[in-house]
Amino acid sequence: MSAATQRFSTVSYRMETEGELEILALLVSVYHAHYVKDATAIAAPFARDATIFNLAPPLIHHGIDIVSKQAWLDSWETPIVLGERDFKVTVRGDLAFAHGLLRMSGTKKGSEGKVSFWMRETVCLERVAGAWKIVHEHASVPFYMDGTLRPAFDLVPQ
Amino acid sequence: MSAATQRFSTVSYRMETEGELEILALLVSVYHAHYVKDATAIAAPFARDATIFNLAPPLIHHGIDIVSKQAWLDSWETPIVLGERDFKVTVRGDLAFAHGLLRMSGTKKGSEGKVSFWMRETVCLERVAGAWKIVHEHASVPFYMDGTLRPAFDLVPQ
Repeated sequence: MSAATQRFSTVSYRMETEGELEILALLVSVYHAHYVKDATAIAAPFARDATIFNLAPPLIHHGIDIVSKQAWLDSWETPIVLGERDFKVTVRGDLAFAHGLLRMSGTKKGSEGKVSFWMRETVCLERVAGAWKIVHEHASVPFYMDGTLRPAFDLVPQ
Repeated sequence: MSAATQRFSTVSYRMETEGELEILALLVSVYHAHYVKDATAIAAPFARDATIFNLAPPLIHHGIDIVSKQAWLDSWETPIVLGERDFKVTVRGDLAFAHGLLRMSGTKKGSEGKVSFWMRETVCLERVAGAWKIVHEHASVPFYMDGTLRPAFDLVPQ
């Protein structure tokens, strides 16, 4: 199997299989949907009952609530830019997972203003009737255990 | 395929396949290794170069450093108890993933004292030469986006 290196956004992927390309196309559709702030397009590749561990509480979200997602998207003044780094996609048959770093940046409405931080992102997927669906997503920022217990928004990839 | 429900720790699993049982046995070995504070046993089921998104910085850990893991284990006065809830294991062929909630509790040495909180846990696995290995782990606590940006250690499962 030959490997090709392809440039996308801020990251270069090493492509091995058609399955990986399919997963990456799906992830790109989610990033683009953030950029244009379209909650329906964000939700499209998710299984209806996907188990989602999001940046904000509660501990578990079951599926994407399009109304509250759109409200969050609309709280941004600018497009939301998601830039990837160190993403790795693993596909075998009808199961896949992908993980890496995502930089979220833009400007929020109101006093919050400019936002730019790196998060860790994991997605697990199943192919059902020929279509890949995200059945699990886990997004997070680590926190400092130095006594302050702050979320570590200031970290940058090594 | 028949399904059986089995009780383990604080959670009941619905077992569908032998593969799921293998994954659960592996996870249980990791919880037990925390209880007895054995860093080598914690590291055993991890691939050497596993991509680990941990509670604490940096953004990515590459594999488990046994010396620093043991130092962290030894910072606890009591055994570290990991109790699971809402875990789901998906296995197809030589690929698997599992996700759910983990309650970490015990007493730290020094001023920190008693600790008890729920985290979200995702593991992705590959079977190589007959043995399952964790190639990716993602553990996190969400944070409040209410202006305080505190890690949400006080959340409990619904």
